[in-house]
Order: sequence, then structure tokens, then C-alpha cells
Amino acid sequence: MATQHLSFDPQAFRAALGTFTTGVTIITTQGEDGAPVGITANSFNSVSLNPPLVLWSLSKQARSLPVFSSGKHWNVHVLSTEQERLSGRFATQGEDKFAEIELDRGISEAPLLQDCTARFQCRTAFQYEGGDHVIFVGEVLAFDHSDRAPLAFQSGQYALTTRKPRNELRLATTPPPECSYTEDLLGYLLGRGHYQALNLLRQLLCNQQLDEQAFFILAVLCIRDNLDLAEINTFVSYTGHVVTLAGMRFLERQQLVAIEGEDDDLRFVLTAKGRETSLQQVALAKVVEQELTAKLGQADAQALKVLLKRLIVVSDPGLPDLWAPR
Amino acid sequence: MATQHLSFDPQAFRAALGTFTTGVTIITTQGEDGAPVGITANSFNSVSLNPPLVLWSLSKQARSLPVFSSGKHWNVHVLSTEQERLSGRFATQGEDKFAEIELDRGISEAPLLQDCTARFQCRTAFQYEGGDHVIFVGEVLAFDHSDRAPLAFQSGQYALTTRKPRNELRLATTPPPECSYTEDLLGYLLGRGHYQALNLLRQLLCNQQLDEQAFFILAVLCIRDNLDLAEINTFVSYTGHVVTLAGMRFLERQQLVAIEGEDDDLRFVLTAKGRETSLQQVALAKVVEQELTAKLGQADAQALKVLLKRLIVVSDPGLPDLWAPR
Repeated sequence: MATQHLSFDPQAFRAALGTFTTGVTIITTQGEDGAPVGITANSFNSVSLNPPLVLWSLSKQARSLPVFSSGKHWNVHVLSTEQERLSGRFATQGEDKFAEIELDRGISEAPLLQDCTARFQCRTAFQYEGGDHVIFVGEVLAFDHSDRAPLAFQSGQYALTTRKPRNELRLATTPPPECSYTEDLLGYLLGRGHYQALNLLRQLLCNQQLDEQAFFILAVLCIRDNLDLAEINTFVSYTGHVVTLAGMRFLERQQLVAIEGEDDDLRFVLTAKGRETSLQQVALAKVVEQELTAKLGQADAQALKVLLKRLIVVSDPGLPDLWAPR
Repeated sequence: MATQHLSFDPQAFRAALGTFTTGVTIITTQGEDGAPVGITANSFNSVSLNPPLVLWSLSKQARSLPVFSSGKHWNVHVLSTEQERLSGRFATQGEDKFAEIELDRGISEAPLLQDCTARFQCRTAFQYEGGDHVIFVGEVLAFDHSDRAPLAFQSGQYALTTRKPRNELRLATTPPPECSYTEDLLGYLLGRGHYQALNLLRQLLCNQQLDEQAFFILAVLCIRDNLDLAEINTFVSYTGHVVTLAGMRFLERQQLVAIEGEDDDLRFVLTAKGRETSLQQVALAKVVEQELTAKLGQADAQALKVLLKRLIVVSDPGLPDLWAPR
């Protein structure tokens, strides 16, 4: 534990408070002039089931305080992972936040945003003193919710959540205790995940053999054409597949690659057929990704990709940048 | 959007409220008899920076209500991902929740738990009416926080959070627009993550060649010994590596595998050297996992494994259960 802060450093206090994970909401109301008002808030929480009450707090400095204080009705929108941009828009001042936003018709005049994870239409029940904030407690008059994955916020950053299954996800029954192998090994899970996804791609490529090494070589040449053998290997050899001249000659016989130059300076370029094959493979890889995303859910698929990127960054053997201009 | 609920179904209301992600806290105080009291709550939130105020709400039915109502001091503990069990313990009634729990000395008599993500030592500032709950607003007198990853809660389940980098994590510069290949392809990320992790394992096995297919075969035989070629392939062939008799003869020449039986019924068993090699490999795979976990952080590594398991379940080609008894 860090030292206790008896005298208050506001930044440290904010950082400590920020460790408490929250969802993200936009809270809206209508001004007396009929103009829509809305702000992003993560101070929302539920209070009571019967009567149904929720709360949130608003800075006494907020320009919208008078409107919320005098308005009776406001709506809380629990944002989905796809509404991060909307959150940013309502967190900043100035622009017309509601420009080009379609609204639903609610039970009051308070604006009702679309495509949220959940919405609560409220009427102020209490306004309480809360230091530099006012605590608004609202009675929920109507609510709805969808199955869109909710956006989260933690330590000043948006976050994706992975719900832990109530019972541990098991791929198999428990291994015998004398065995050191377990399905809970990161390396095993990476390998099995990789090969199972590749397997789905293979099924879509039913008329075509998919040799994984050939797949990698074509992909590299599709991004950076006209490479020599050593250059290809700088991009591919981390996979453990070392590309040889014989391997390239095999792709030449399949008319996927053309070999140019002299014996001591051979360079490899994609043929039109090679490019078409590679683009077809990547298009089908996107189909596989769509199928898996539909099964995992958008938010989990996105979280998996963020975590894999993080893994790749921390385990990078120093691969050259395939996409760098040259 | 689902239909609006104008008349209230408490279960639907609870489900809608549950979509708002929260952290998990334990809030403690001391009874007048000196006994420690503590409950798990996710209704915590920050209220004010100056003065420093936080709030949470407690059911009017709670047995601990009189203690919290009359006690002046209470502590909020924001739990870490490693305190899920503690959360469960303080969420249920009955047992002596504080048995065998070591406490820190705080500024009041309220129990101060250890190993949390953050702690706030408070004195009641206000108690507000909140329907079937009482809202406690506390002035924070002291706080501290650590870098332990915080536990989250969403829709009735514990959750792990993956913070989204403020700027998108890029492995490389932007690909040229005419190219269909992008680093943001799940299949690419799985392959690259898998091979980079395998590459780290290879470096630890510097005296030993690591042939990935041999690694898989030895692993399968280590868990289920005495298989024939077809049986080995049911466990291995999804990787695209098809195991042949010649491949097994190669492992026999390295004295890793012994071949038993007649020509039409050959069975393969691990030798002592084969078992030792395999166990060494898995031990080193665990070392790689520890290194990667240290770099990723415990919570992200755990989230990655949960998500990979989910991916494996939804893309399972029907692999037989390697660990099933036979």
C-alpha cells in the first residue's frame, strides 16, 4: 500500500477514486427555452428498487446545473461500447451536442437517445447537498434495456469488460494431478485458438490447399512486393517456418509467384494469380472473424483483439514494420 | 430497444440497472460492542473533490443498518481482482467474516482490510432518504491506493476490465489504402501472438530444437500415452500438421518415443526421455507465461485467457477431450 494521504493532494485523491470502475452515462433534460441539454456522467448508481430510485451528482460549477435543478424530468442513458464517441461529444462543452442525433419519444420532453444499453426516464425525487456537487435522486418512471454490451470507465480511460463465467470455463475435464499439462496454459490456449481459427479458414478455402507458410509468404508479398529470400524471412521466420528457395520455386510452379533477377540476386514478386489468391484468403479470413465475432459478441471480440495486440507488443522479437513506407 | 416498462417488473428493473458496470467495495465499521461489521457493496461512487465526499447506499432491511447509522466512521475498500473470494464472503450473512483476516491500523476503530486497490477512511457527513435504502455520504479523512487491478461487476457477474489505450495500439504504421491486409485482423493477431509466444519458448529451449509438431505429439502422449497414429491425429490434426509414421520414426530415433505392437497395430508410448523432454517444455512454457503475465499485468493476462477459452469453445471443430478418463 502507498502511504496514506492525510493532507489532500487532489490529483492523488482523483486517482484513487478513479480505480473504482463505472459505466458511462449521458444524462439529458430540456431547458426552459426548449433547448436540449445533456452531459456525460459516471457518477450514476442505483439506490432503491421500491420505489425505483437512481442517483447521480453534478458539479455546482456545471453550466447545466440551473436547468437540471429546475427541470423535473431527466433521462439516464447507459452507453454501449459503440457509443464511446457520443460519450466524448457530451463530455465537452460548446458545440451543439444534439446536432444530427435522432431521438426517441419518451414520456417527458427530456431528449431520449437511441441505441443505448439501458435507459431510465426519471423525475427528480430529491436534490441533496454534496460538497462541490449536487446529488440528484430520481424516481424511475420508465426504463428499457437492450443486449448491447455496456461501455466501462476506469482510471480515466474507457474500458471493455470481460464477464467472468460463474463457473470456470473448462475445455475438458480436470487433468490427472500427476500431469503437469493443463488446459489453463497461455501457450496452449494461444496455439489452440490460432489453429482452430485457421481451421475455419481452411474450410472456407475448400477448393484450395492452404499451406500456412504459403499463406504467410503471399501475405508479405501482397503488402511489400519484390523482396529477396532474406527479406521475406525477416518477416516470416519468427513463425518457425524458414522460407527456402525450394519453397519459392514451389509457389512459382503454382504460378503464384514470379522469380526475377540473377542467381545471386533473386527477387520474388506476386503474379496476378498470386495476388488474387492472397486477397481471397484475407477476405475469407474476415468472414471467419465476422462469424467468430457474432458468436463471441462485439465487445468480447474487441477486447480479445486489444489484449492480443498488447501481447504482441510485449513479446515482439523486433520484427520489422511490414507496413512501413520504403 | 426492448419495450418500455411503464409498470414495474422488479426483475427487469434489476436487470436494466445491472448493465451499469461498477467496481466492488467492502464497507466496514465497528459496532458499539466493538465487533467488526462489513458488507459488500457496489453502490459506491465519488461525489465531491473539495470537500472530499463519497457515497454509497444501504438497504433499510440490512442487519448492519443500525450500526452504520449510529457509527460515525466507516472505511470503503475498492477490491482488486484477487479479492473476489473476499467479496463473496462479505456478501453473505452468518459466518464470522473477519475470522483470520489481518487488519491494518486506520485513523478510526473501523476495520481496515489489506491488499485492496484503494481505501477511503470516512466519517459520515450526511444520511439521506433513498426509498428502501439509506444514502450515506462520507467525508474522506484519509485514503491510499495501490496498483492492484480493480475487480469489476456487471449484470450480476464479476468482470475483468481491459482499458482501451487512449490512442489505438498500432503494431505498425497505417497500411496503404489499396491493400486489404490490415494488422487489425483477428486471424493475424492470433497467429502472430501464438508464434511470438512460441518463439520465446524456443529461446529458453536453446539447447534443444523445438519442432512444433513434435511438441504437440509429446504433449498428447504425456497426457494420454499408448495411442495409435489415428488416435494421435484426432488430437493434433486440427493444427494442420498431419502426423505420419515417418514422423513417429523420427521421434523414435531421438529416443523420445517407443513403438510397440505389430505392423498393422502400431502403438506409440513415451520413453522416459520423451516424458522428461515434454515436462521440461511445459515447465518452460509456464516460465514464458509468467514473463508475459508480468508484462501484461495479472488482470489482463487473466482476461486474455478467459477470452481465448471462449474463442476456443465457439470455434471447436469437435476435438475429443484430451483429459477425459478412459
